[in-house]
Amino acid sequence: MSRLALAVEYDGRAFCGFQSQATACGVQDALAQAIGAIAGGSVGVTGAGRTDAGVHATSQVIHFDTPVARPLSAWTRGVNALLPRAVAVLWAVPVGDDFHARFAAEARHYTYLLQNRAQRVALDAGRVGWYHRPLDLVAMREAAALLAGTHDFSAFRAAGCQAKTPVRNLTRCEIAQRGTLFRFDFSADGFLHHMIRNILGALVSVGAGGKSSAWIDELLASRDRTQGAATFAADGLYFTGADYPARFGLPPTRRELPAGAQ
Amino acid sequence: MSRLALAVEYDGRAFCGFQSQATACGVQDALAQAIGAIAGGSVGVTGAGRTDAGVHATSQVIHFDTPVARPLSAWTRGVNALLPRAVAVLWAVPVGDDFHARFAAEARHYTYLLQNRAQRVALDAGRVGWYHRPLDLVAMREAAALLAGTHDFSAFRAAGCQAKTPVRNLTRCEIAQRGTLFRFDFSADGFLHHMIRNILGALVSVGAGGKSSAWIDELLASRDRTQGAATFAADGLYFTGADYPARFGLPPTRRELPAGAQ
Repeated sequence: MSRLALAVEYDGRAFCGFQSQATACGVQDALAQAIGAIAGGSVGVTGAGRTDAGVHATSQVIHFDTPVARPLSAWTRGVNALLPRAVAVLWAVPVGDDFHARFAAEARHYTYLLQNRAQRVALDAGRVGWYHRPLDLVAMREAAALLAGTHDFSAFRAAGCQAKTPVRNLTRCEIAQRGTLFRFDFSADGFLHHMIRNILGALVSVGAGGKSSAWIDELLASRDRTQGAATFAADGLYFTGADYPARFGLPPTRRELPAGAQ
Repeated sequence: MSRLALAVEYDGRAFCGFQSQATACGVQDALAQAIGAIAGGSVGVTGAGRTDAGVHATSQVIHFDTPVARPLSAWTRGVNALLPRAVAVLWAVPVGDDFHARFAAEARHYTYLLQNRAQRVALDAGRVGWYHRPLDLVAMREAAALLAGTHDFSAFRAAGCQAKTPVRNLTRCEIAQRGTLFRFDFSADGFLHHMIRNILGALVSVGAGGKSSAWIDELLASRDRTQGAATFAADGLYFTGADYPARFGLPPTRRELPAGAQ
Protein backbone atom coordinates (compact mmCIF):
# COMPACT_ATOMS: atom_id res chain seq x y z
CA MET A 1 0.00 0.00 0.00
CA SER A 2 1.22 3.48 -0.73
CA ARG A 3 -0.41 6.73 0.31
CA LEU A 4 -0.93 9.73 -1.95
CA ALA A 5 -1.84 13.31 -1.08
CA LEU A 6 -3.68 15.46 -3.62
CA ALA A 7 -4.95 19.04 -3.66
CA VAL A 8 -8.25 19.64 -5.40
CA GLU A 9 -10.34 22.71 -6.24
CA TYR A 10 -14.08 22.69 -6.79
CA ASP A 11 -17.15 24.79 -7.40
CA GLY A 12 -19.45 23.90 -4.53
CA ARG A 13 -22.60 24.60 -6.56
CA ALA A 14 -22.16 21.29 -8.36
CA PHE A 15 -22.16 19.16 -5.20
CA CYS A 16 -24.19 18.48 -2.07
CA GLY A 17 -21.08 19.14 0.03
CA PHE A 18 -17.70 17.48 0.39
CA GLN A 19 -18.88 14.44 2.29
CA SER A 20 -19.96 11.24 0.56
CA GLN A 21 -23.72 10.67 0.34
CA ALA A 22 -25.90 7.69 -0.54
CA THR A 23 -26.88 9.51 -3.75
CA ALA A 24 -23.17 10.02 -4.60
CA CYS A 25 -23.63 13.80 -4.86
CA GLY A 26 -20.61 14.64 -2.68
CA VAL A 27 -17.21 15.85 -3.88
CA GLN A 28 -15.81 12.81 -2.04
CA ASP A 29 -17.98 10.52 -4.19
CA ALA A 30 -16.74 12.09 -7.43
CA LEU A 31 -13.13 11.79 -6.27
CA ALA A 32 -13.48 8.20 -5.07
CA GLN A 33 -15.03 7.20 -8.37
CA ALA A 34 -12.41 8.83 -10.60
CA ILE A 35 -9.43 7.78 -8.44
CA GLY A 36 -10.88 4.28 -8.10
CA ALA A 37 -11.06 3.99 -11.88
CA ILE A 38 -7.37 4.87 -12.20
CA ALA A 39 -6.42 2.65 -9.23
CA GLY A 40 -8.44 -0.25 -10.62
CA GLY A 41 -10.33 -0.75 -7.37
CA SER A 42 -12.27 1.14 -4.76
CA VAL A 43 -10.41 3.71 -2.66
CA GLY A 44 -11.34 5.60 0.50
CA VAL A 45 -10.81 9.35 0.17
CA THR A 46 -10.18 11.52 3.27
CA GLY A 47 -10.31 15.33 3.10
CA ALA A 48 -8.88 18.14 5.22
CA GLY A 49 -12.27 19.77 5.75
CA ARG A 50 -15.90 18.84 5.25
CA THR A 51 -17.37 21.73 3.33
CA ASP A 52 -21.16 22.22 3.18
CA ALA A 53 -23.28 22.14 0.04
CA GLY A 54 -22.52 25.23 -2.05
CA VAL A 55 -19.16 25.93 -0.36
CA HIS A 56 -16.21 26.16 -2.76
CA ALA A 57 -12.58 25.13 -2.36
CA THR A 58 -9.43 26.60 -3.87
CA SER A 59 -7.29 24.00 -2.12
CA GLN A 60 -8.82 21.00 -0.40
CA VAL A 61 -6.18 18.42 0.53
CA ILE A 62 -7.14 14.75 0.38
CA HIS A 63 -5.33 11.45 0.80
CA PHE A 64 -5.98 7.83 -0.15
CA ASP A 65 -4.18 4.49 -0.10
CA THR A 66 -3.67 2.29 -3.11
CA PRO A 67 -1.74 -0.91 -3.81
CA VAL A 68 -0.98 0.15 -7.40
CA ALA A 69 1.97 2.22 -8.63
CA ARG A 70 1.17 4.81 -11.26
CA PRO A 71 3.09 7.80 -12.61
CA LEU A 72 2.02 10.95 -10.74
CA SER A 73 0.43 12.29 -13.93
CA ALA A 74 -2.13 9.47 -13.66
CA TRP A 75 -3.30 10.95 -10.34
CA THR A 76 -3.52 14.48 -11.81
CA ARG A 77 -4.28 14.51 -15.54
CA GLY A 78 -5.62 10.99 -15.54
CA VAL A 79 -8.02 11.61 -12.67
CA ASN A 80 -8.98 15.03 -14.08
CA ALA A 81 -10.04 13.40 -17.34
CA LEU A 82 -12.57 11.35 -15.35
CA LEU A 83 -13.77 13.96 -12.84
CA PRO A 84 -16.83 16.18 -13.39
CA ARG A 85 -16.05 19.63 -14.81
CA ALA A 86 -16.57 21.38 -11.43
CA VAL A 87 -13.71 19.60 -9.63
CA ALA A 88 -10.05 19.13 -10.57
CA VAL A 89 -6.84 17.83 -9.01
CA LEU A 90 -4.10 20.49 -8.73
CA TRP A 91 -1.18 18.27 -7.70
CA ALA A 92 -0.42 14.80 -6.37
CA VAL A 93 2.53 13.58 -4.29
CA PRO A 94 3.40 10.35 -2.49
CA VAL A 95 3.38 10.67 1.31
CA GLY A 96 4.25 8.42 4.22
CA ASP A 97 1.44 6.54 5.94
CA ASP A 98 1.81 8.90 8.94
CA PHE A 99 0.22 11.63 6.78
CA HIS A 100 -3.51 12.19 7.26
CA ALA A 101 -5.34 14.96 5.37
CA ARG A 102 -7.67 15.61 8.29
CA PHE A 103 -5.73 14.81 11.45
CA ALA A 104 -2.35 16.18 10.32
CA ALA A 105 -3.85 19.60 9.48
CA GLU A 106 -2.65 22.18 12.02
CA ALA A 107 -4.81 25.05 10.78
CA ARG A 108 -7.58 25.66 8.26
CA HIS A 109 -8.37 28.76 6.24
CA TYR A 110 -11.57 30.14 4.76
CA THR A 111 -12.53 33.31 2.91
CA TYR A 112 -16.04 34.71 2.52
CA LEU A 113 -16.84 37.18 -0.29
CA LEU A 114 -19.87 39.41 0.21
CA GLN A 115 -21.30 41.84 -2.34
CA ASN A 116 -22.95 44.78 -0.56
CA ARG A 117 -25.19 46.69 -2.93
CA ALA A 118 -28.86 47.36 -3.56
CA GLN A 119 -29.20 45.10 -6.59
CA ARG A 120 -28.81 41.34 -6.39
CA VAL A 121 -25.73 39.62 -7.85
CA ALA A 122 -25.98 37.94 -11.25
CA LEU A 123 -22.50 37.58 -12.76
CA ASP A 124 -21.26 36.11 -9.46
CA ALA A 125 -24.47 34.39 -8.34
CA GLY A 126 -23.53 31.40 -6.20
CA ARG A 127 -19.94 32.65 -5.98
CA VAL A 128 -20.35 35.64 -3.66
CA GLY A 129 -22.83 36.28 -0.87
CA TRP A 130 -25.11 39.32 -1.12
CA TYR A 131 -26.51 41.79 1.36
CA HIS A 132 -28.64 44.71 0.18
CA ARG A 133 -28.41 47.26 3.01
CA PRO A 134 -25.19 49.27 3.58
CA LEU A 135 -22.72 47.63 5.96
CA ASP A 136 -20.45 49.49 8.38
CA LEU A 137 -16.89 48.19 8.07
CA VAL A 138 -15.68 49.76 11.32
CA ALA A 139 -18.46 48.20 13.40
CA MET A 140 -17.92 44.81 11.79
CA ARG A 141 -14.18 45.01 12.47
CA GLU A 142 -14.86 45.77 16.14
CA ALA A 143 -17.11 42.72 16.29
CA ALA A 144 -14.56 40.57 14.46
CA ALA A 145 -11.86 41.56 16.94
CA LEU A 146 -14.04 40.22 19.77
CA LEU A 147 -14.35 36.86 18.00
CA ALA A 148 -10.62 36.41 17.40
CA GLY A 149 -8.83 34.25 19.92
CA THR A 150 -9.71 31.11 21.85
CA HIS A 151 -13.40 30.90 22.78
CA ASP A 152 -16.24 28.49 23.36
CA PHE A 153 -18.05 28.96 20.05
CA SER A 154 -21.24 27.11 21.06
CA ALA A 155 -23.32 30.13 20.03
CA PHE A 156 -21.98 29.73 16.47
CA ARG A 157 -22.32 25.97 16.24
CA ALA A 158 -24.96 24.10 14.23
CA ALA A 159 -27.30 21.85 16.20
CA GLY A 160 -26.00 18.73 14.46
CA CYS A 161 -22.30 19.52 14.98
CA GLN A 162 -20.39 16.43 16.03
CA ALA A 163 -17.17 18.06 17.27
CA LYS A 164 -16.03 16.87 20.71
CA THR A 165 -15.47 20.38 22.00
CA PRO A 166 -16.91 23.80 21.05
CA VAL A 167 -13.61 25.53 21.89
CA ARG A 168 -11.64 26.81 18.91
CA ASN A 169 -8.72 29.16 18.46
CA LEU A 170 -9.74 31.66 15.80
CA THR A 171 -6.32 33.04 14.89
CA ARG A 172 -7.55 35.24 12.04
CA CYS A 173 -10.86 37.07 11.72
CA GLU A 174 -10.25 40.00 9.38
CA ILE A 175 -12.43 42.09 7.12
CA ALA A 176 -11.39 44.09 4.07
CA GLN A 177 -13.51 46.28 1.81
CA ARG A 178 -12.93 47.16 -1.83
CA GLY A 179 -15.75 49.20 -3.28
CA THR A 180 -18.95 47.27 -2.59
CA LEU A 181 -17.16 43.96 -2.02
CA PHE A 182 -16.39 42.80 1.49
CA ARG A 183 -13.91 40.04 2.11
CA PHE A 184 -13.78 38.09 5.38
CA ASP A 185 -10.71 35.96 6.16
CA PHE A 186 -10.81 33.24 8.82
CA SER A 187 -8.08 30.96 10.14
CA ALA A 188 -8.38 28.52 13.03
CA ASP A 189 -7.13 25.20 14.31
CA GLY A 190 -10.52 23.94 13.20
CA PHE A 191 -14.08 25.10 12.64
CA LEU A 192 -17.38 23.88 14.04
CA HIS A 193 -20.26 22.98 11.72
CA HIS A 194 -21.71 26.20 10.20
CA MET A 195 -19.34 28.26 12.39
CA ILE A 196 -18.23 30.66 9.65
CA ARG A 197 -21.71 31.12 8.19
CA ASN A 198 -23.08 31.77 11.69
CA ILE A 199 -20.28 34.26 12.35
CA LEU A 200 -21.10 35.94 9.02
CA GLY A 201 -24.74 36.26 10.03
CA ALA A 202 -23.70 37.91 13.29
CA LEU A 203 -21.17 40.25 11.67
CA VAL A 204 -23.73 41.34 9.07
CA SER A 205 -26.27 42.02 11.86
CA VAL A 206 -23.69 44.30 13.45
CA GLY A 207 -22.70 45.88 10.13
CA ALA A 208 -26.29 46.69 9.24
CA GLY A 209 -26.79 48.37 12.61
CA GLY A 210 -29.33 45.94 14.08
CA LYS A 211 -26.87 44.84 16.74
CA SER A 212 -23.95 46.57 18.48
CA SER A 213 -20.49 45.08 18.28
CA ALA A 214 -20.64 44.51 22.06
CA TRP A 215 -23.51 42.07 21.41
CA ILE A 216 -20.87 39.67 20.06
CA ASP A 217 -19.40 39.32 23.56
CA GLU A 218 -22.87 38.60 25.01
CA LEU A 219 -23.48 36.07 22.26
CA LEU A 220 -20.19 34.27 22.90
CA ALA A 221 -20.90 34.25 26.66
CA SER A 222 -24.42 32.89 26.12
CA ARG A 223 -23.07 29.76 24.38
CA ASP A 224 -26.59 29.66 22.96
CA ARG A 225 -27.01 29.26 19.22
CA THR A 226 -30.65 30.39 19.41
CA GLN A 227 -29.46 33.88 20.48
CA GLY A 228 -27.48 34.31 17.27
CA ALA A 229 -28.29 35.55 13.78
CA ALA A 230 -29.46 33.33 10.93
CA THR A 231 -26.87 31.15 9.22
CA PHE A 232 -25.58 33.12 6.24
CA ALA A 233 -25.73 31.73 2.68
CA ALA A 234 -23.00 29.30 1.58
CA ASP A 235 -22.57 31.16 -1.75
CA GLY A 236 -19.51 33.28 -0.93
CA LEU A 237 -17.60 30.77 1.20
CA TYR A 238 -14.28 29.31 0.04
CA PHE A 239 -12.11 26.74 1.80
CA THR A 240 -8.66 28.11 0.91
CA GLY A 241 -6.48 25.43 2.41
CA ALA A 242 -4.95 23.81 5.45
CA ASP A 243 -1.47 23.90 6.99
CA TYR A 244 0.58 20.74 7.51
CA PRO A 245 3.91 20.17 9.24
CA ALA A 246 6.85 20.87 6.92
CA ARG A 247 8.20 17.36 7.41
CA PHE A 248 5.58 15.99 5.00
CA GLY A 249 7.22 17.99 2.20
CA LEU A 250 3.93 18.87 0.48
CA PRO A 251 3.57 21.41 -2.35
CA PRO A 252 1.69 24.57 -1.26
CA THR A 253 -1.51 23.48 0.52
CA ARG A 254 -3.00 26.94 0.65
CA ARG A 255 -4.35 29.03 -2.23
CA GLU A 256 -5.71 32.38 -1.14
CA LEU A 257 -8.19 34.20 -3.31
CA PRO A 258 -6.58 37.25 -4.94
CA ALA A 259 -6.64 40.41 -2.82
CA GLY A 260 -9.16 42.12 -5.07
CA ALA A 261 -11.44 39.13 -5.60
CA GLN A 262 -14.10 39.05 -6.79
CA MET B 1 -42.39 58.20 -24.95
CA SER B 2 -39.49 58.41 -22.55
CA ARG B 3 -36.12 56.72 -22.88
CA LEU B 4 -34.32 54.89 -20.09
CA ALA B 5 -30.71 53.76 -19.88
CA LEU B 6 -29.80 50.76 -17.72
CA ALA B 7 -26.57 48.97 -16.89
CA VAL B 8 -26.76 45.19 -16.58
CA GLU B 9 -24.34 42.44 -15.60
CA TYR B 10 -24.61 38.82 -16.69
CA ASP B 11 -22.98 35.43 -16.64
CA GLY B 12 -22.63 34.55 -20.33
CA ARG B 13 -22.86 30.82 -19.67
CA ALA B 14 -26.60 31.11 -19.21
CA PHE B 15 -27.26 32.67 -22.63
CA CYS B 16 -26.62 32.10 -26.32
CA GLY B 17 -25.12 35.59 -26.56
CA PHE B 18 -26.46 39.11 -26.08
CA GLN B 19 -28.47 39.28 -29.27
CA SER B 20 -32.08 38.22 -29.45
CA GLN B 21 -32.76 34.81 -31.02
CA ALA B 22 -35.86 33.03 -32.28
CA THR B 23 -35.52 30.62 -29.34
CA ALA B 24 -35.38 33.59 -26.92
CA CYS B 25 -32.04 32.41 -25.49
CA GLY B 26 -30.33 35.82 -25.77
CA VAL B 27 -29.70 38.28 -22.94
CA GLN B 28 -31.70 40.76 -25.02
CA ASP B 29 -34.71 38.39 -24.96
CA ALA B 30 -34.56 38.04 -21.18
CA LEU B 31 -34.32 41.82 -20.75
CA ALA B 32 -37.12 42.59 -23.23
CA GLN B 33 -39.41 40.11 -21.50
CA ALA B 34 -38.80 41.39 -17.95
CA ILE B 35 -38.84 45.08 -18.93
CA GLY B 36 -41.92 44.53 -21.08
CA ALA B 37 -43.73 43.01 -18.12
CA ILE B 38 -43.01 46.10 -16.03
CA ALA B 39 -43.83 48.45 -18.90
CA GLY B 40 -47.04 46.60 -19.64
CA GLY B 41 -46.21 46.17 -23.32
CA SER B 42 -43.42 45.03 -25.60
CA VAL B 43 -40.20 47.06 -25.64
CA GLY B 44 -37.19 47.05 -27.93
CA VAL B 45 -33.89 46.75 -26.07
CA THR B 46 -30.65 48.07 -27.59
CA GLY B 47 -27.25 47.23 -26.09
CA ALA B 48 -23.79 48.82 -26.25
CA GLY B 49 -22.11 45.65 -27.47
CA ARG B 50 -23.22 42.30 -28.88
CA THR B 51 -21.38 39.74 -26.82
CA ASP B 52 -21.02 36.16 -28.07
CA ALA B 53 -22.39 33.07 -26.36
CA GLY B 54 -20.43 32.44 -23.15
CA VAL B 55 -19.08 36.00 -22.92
CA HIS B 56 -19.82 37.75 -19.62
CA ALA B 57 -20.56 41.40 -18.84
CA THR B 58 -19.79 43.45 -15.74
CA SER B 59 -21.43 46.51 -17.29
CA GLN B 60 -23.48 46.27 -20.47
CA VAL B 61 -25.42 49.49 -21.11
CA ILE B 62 -28.84 49.22 -22.73
CA HIS B 63 -31.66 51.59 -23.58
CA PHE B 64 -35.35 51.29 -24.38
CA ASP B 65 -38.36 53.54 -24.92
CA THR B 66 -41.61 53.28 -23.01
CA PRO B 67 -44.79 55.34 -22.81
CA VAL B 68 -45.28 54.53 -19.12
CA ALA B 69 -43.87 56.40 -16.13
CA ARG B 70 -42.61 54.23 -13.31
CA PRO B 71 -40.40 54.96 -10.28
CA LEU B 72 -36.78 54.11 -11.13
CA SER B 73 -36.88 51.25 -8.63
CA ALA B 74 -39.38 49.53 -10.94
CA TRP B 75 -36.67 49.41 -13.63
CA THR B 76 -34.07 48.04 -11.20
CA ARG B 77 -35.56 45.95 -8.39
CA GLY B 78 -38.80 45.36 -10.26
CA VAL B 79 -37.07 44.13 -13.40
CA ASN B 80 -34.53 42.12 -11.35
CA ALA B 81 -37.37 40.24 -9.69
CA LEU B 82 -38.45 39.03 -13.14
CA LEU B 83 -35.06 38.41 -14.75
CA PRO B 84 -33.28 35.02 -14.72
CA ARG B 85 -30.72 34.59 -11.95
CA ALA B 86 -27.73 35.06 -14.32
CA VAL B 87 -28.60 38.65 -15.31
CA ALA B 88 -29.35 41.73 -13.19
CA VAL B 89 -29.88 45.47 -13.64
CA LEU B 90 -27.31 47.60 -11.77
CA TRP B 91 -28.89 51.03 -12.24
CA ALA B 92 -31.50 52.84 -14.33
CA VAL B 93 -31.71 56.50 -15.31
CA PRO B 94 -33.93 58.54 -17.64
CA VAL B 95 -32.08 59.87 -20.70
CA GLY B 96 -32.92 62.14 -23.61
CA ASP B 97 -33.93 60.55 -26.89
CA ASP B 98 -30.57 61.56 -28.36
CA PHE B 99 -28.99 58.85 -26.21
CA HIS B 100 -28.31 55.53 -27.94
CA ALA B 101 -26.58 52.67 -26.08
CA ARG B 102 -24.82 51.50 -29.23
CA PHE B 103 -24.22 54.60 -31.37
CA ALA B 104 -23.40 57.01 -28.54
CA ALA B 105 -20.66 54.73 -27.18
CA GLU B 106 -17.25 56.29 -27.85
CA ALA B 107 -15.16 53.36 -26.62
CA ARG B 108 -15.66 49.81 -25.45
CA HIS B 109 -13.67 47.78 -22.94
CA TYR B 110 -13.06 44.07 -22.52
CA THR B 111 -10.94 41.95 -20.19
CA TYR B 112 -9.86 38.36 -20.77
CA LEU B 113 -8.76 36.15 -17.85
CA LEU B 114 -6.55 33.18 -18.68
CA GLN B 115 -5.39 30.52 -16.27
CA ASN B 116 -2.00 29.14 -17.34
CA ARG B 117 -1.26 25.88 -15.58
CA ALA B 118 -0.92 22.17 -16.31
CA GLN B 119 -4.24 21.14 -14.76
CA ARG B 120 -7.59 22.24 -16.15
CA VAL B 121 -9.72 24.80 -14.30
CA ALA B 122 -12.67 23.59 -12.22
CA LEU B 123 -13.58 26.28 -9.66
CA ASP B 124 -13.54 28.90 -12.44
CA ALA B 125 -14.68 26.70 -15.32
CA GLY B 126 -16.53 28.88 -17.84
CA ARG B 127 -15.27 32.02 -16.07
CA VAL B 128 -11.59 31.98 -17.07
CA GLY B 129 -9.88 30.63 -20.15
CA TRP B 130 -7.21 27.94 -19.77
CA TYR B 131 -3.95 27.13 -21.50
CA HIS B 132 -1.82 24.24 -20.32
CA ARG B 133 1.68 25.05 -21.63
CA PRO B 134 3.79 27.84 -20.06
CA LEU B 135 3.27 31.26 -21.62
CA ASP B 136 5.99 33.90 -22.03
CA LEU B 137 4.72 37.26 -20.78
CA VAL B 138 7.50 39.29 -22.42
CA ALA B 139 6.89 37.79 -25.87
CA MET B 140 3.13 38.30 -25.55
CA ARG B 141 3.64 41.93 -24.52
CA GLU B 142 5.83 42.53 -27.58
CA ALA B 143 3.08 41.08 -29.75
CA ALA B 144 0.40 43.10 -27.97
CA ALA B 145 2.35 46.32 -28.57
CA LEU B 146 2.27 45.61 -32.31
CA LEU B 147 -1.53 45.26 -32.21
CA ALA B 148 -2.15 48.52 -30.34
CA GLY B 149 -3.09 51.49 -32.51
CA THR B 150 -5.16 51.93 -35.64
CA HIS B 151 -5.01 48.95 -38.00
CA ASP B 152 -7.00 47.01 -40.55
CA PHE B 153 -7.94 44.04 -38.35
CA SER B 154 -9.25 41.84 -41.20
CA ALA B 155 -6.94 39.03 -40.07
CA PHE B 156 -8.75 39.00 -36.71
CA ARG B 157 -12.28 39.26 -38.04
CA ALA B 158 -14.83 36.45 -38.13
CA ALA B 159 -16.11 35.43 -41.57
CA GLY B 160 -19.64 36.54 -40.73
CA CYS B 161 -18.68 39.98 -39.36
CA GLN B 162 -21.05 42.66 -40.60
CA ALA B 163 -19.01 45.75 -39.72
CA LYS B 164 -18.68 48.28 -42.54
CA THR B 165 -14.94 48.64 -42.10
CA PRO B 166 -12.24 46.36 -40.63
CA VAL B 167 -10.27 49.37 -39.34
CA ARG B 168 -10.31 49.84 -35.58
CA ASN B 169 -8.30 51.92 -33.13
CA LEU B 170 -7.12 49.56 -30.40
CA THR B 171 -6.20 52.09 -27.71
CA ARG B 172 -5.37 49.52 -25.04
CA CYS B 173 -3.87 46.07 -25.46
CA GLU B 174 -2.16 45.25 -22.17
CA ILE B 175 -1.21 42.04 -20.41
CA ALA B 176 -0.61 41.52 -16.69
CA GLN B 177 0.44 38.35 -14.88
CA ARG B 178 -0.25 37.38 -11.29
CA GLY B 179 0.99 33.91 -10.48
CA THR B 180 -0.52 31.58 -13.07
CA LEU B 181 -3.28 34.02 -14.03
CA PHE B 182 -2.90 36.23 -17.08
CA ARG B 183 -5.14 39.21 -17.61
CA PHE B 184 -5.57 40.89 -20.99
CA ASP B 185 -7.17 44.35 -21.18
CA PHE B 186 -8.54 45.72 -24.43
CA SER B 187 -10.07 49.10 -25.26
CA ALA B 188 -11.11 50.34 -28.68
CA ASP B 189 -13.62 52.53 -30.48
CA GLY B 190 -15.26 49.26 -31.40
CA PHE B 191 -14.45 45.60 -31.97
CA LEU B 192 -15.03 43.33 -34.94
CA HIS B 193 -16.83 40.01 -34.51
CA HIS B 194 -14.53 37.55 -32.66
CA MET B 195 -11.73 40.16 -32.76
CA ILE B 196 -10.64 39.71 -29.14
CA ARG B 197 -10.87 35.92 -29.18
CA ASN B 198 -8.86 35.87 -32.41
CA ILE B 199 -6.28 38.23 -30.89
CA LEU B 200 -6.13 35.95 -27.82
CA GLY B 201 -5.47 32.94 -30.04
CA ALA B 202 -2.61 34.81 -31.74
CA LEU B 203 -1.11 36.09 -28.47
CA VAL B 204 -1.20 32.60 -26.96
CA SER B 205 0.53 31.21 -30.08
CA VAL B 206 3.30 33.74 -29.51
CA GLY B 207 3.38 33.14 -25.75
CA ALA B 208 3.71 29.38 -26.18
CA GLY B 209 6.62 29.87 -28.58
CA GLY B 210 4.98 28.55 -31.73
CA LYS B 211 5.11 31.97 -33.37
CA SER B 212 7.42 34.97 -32.99
CA SER B 213 6.02 38.32 -31.94
CA ALA B 214 7.04 39.67 -35.38
CA TRP B 215 4.52 37.26 -36.91
CA ILE B 216 1.80 39.58 -35.58
CA ASP B 217 2.94 42.27 -38.03
CA GLU B 218 2.84 39.78 -40.90
CA LEU B 219 -0.60 38.67 -39.81
CA LEU B 220 -1.95 42.23 -39.66
CA ALA B 221 -0.44 42.97 -43.09
CA SER B 222 -1.93 39.80 -44.60
CA ARG B 223 -5.48 40.92 -43.75
CA ASP B 224 -6.21 37.21 -44.02
CA ARG B 225 -8.09 35.51 -41.23
CA THR B 226 -7.03 32.07 -42.47
CA GLN B 227 -3.40 32.94 -41.58
CA GLY B 228 -4.32 33.49 -37.93
CA ALA B 229 -4.59 31.25 -34.90
CA ALA B 230 -7.79 29.49 -33.82
CA THR B 231 -10.47 31.62 -32.13
CA PHE B 232 -9.87 31.34 -28.38
CA ALA B 233 -12.60 30.12 -26.00
CA ALA B 234 -15.24 32.63 -24.85
CA ASP B 235 -14.91 31.45 -21.21
CA GLY B 236 -12.61 34.18 -19.86
CA LEU B 237 -14.01 37.14 -21.79
CA TYR B 238 -15.78 40.01 -20.00
CA PHE B 239 -17.37 43.08 -21.52
CA THR B 240 -16.47 45.66 -18.86
CA GLY B 241 -18.27 48.69 -20.20
CA ALA B 242 -18.48 51.49 -22.72
CA ASP B 243 -17.73 55.20 -22.53
CA TYR B 244 -20.37 57.85 -23.30
CA PRO B 245 -20.16 61.63 -23.58
CA ALA B 246 -20.43 63.31 -20.16
CA ARG B 247 -23.43 65.34 -21.33
CA PHE B 248 -25.68 62.30 -20.90
CA GLY B 249 -24.99 62.40 -17.17
CA LEU B 250 -24.93 58.61 -16.75
CA PRO B 251 -23.78 56.79 -13.62
CA PRO B 252 -20.47 54.91 -14.12
CA THR B 253 -20.77 52.84 -17.32
CA ARG B 254 -17.56 50.93 -16.75
CA ARG B 255 -16.85 48.27 -14.14
CA GLU B 256 -13.37 46.84 -14.37
CA LEU B 257 -12.63 43.44 -12.91
CA PRO B 258 -10.51 43.76 -9.76
CA ALA B 259 -6.75 43.93 -10.37
CA GLY B 260 -6.12 40.49 -8.90
CA ALA B 261 -9.13 38.76 -10.46
CA GLN B 262 -9.82 35.95 -10.69
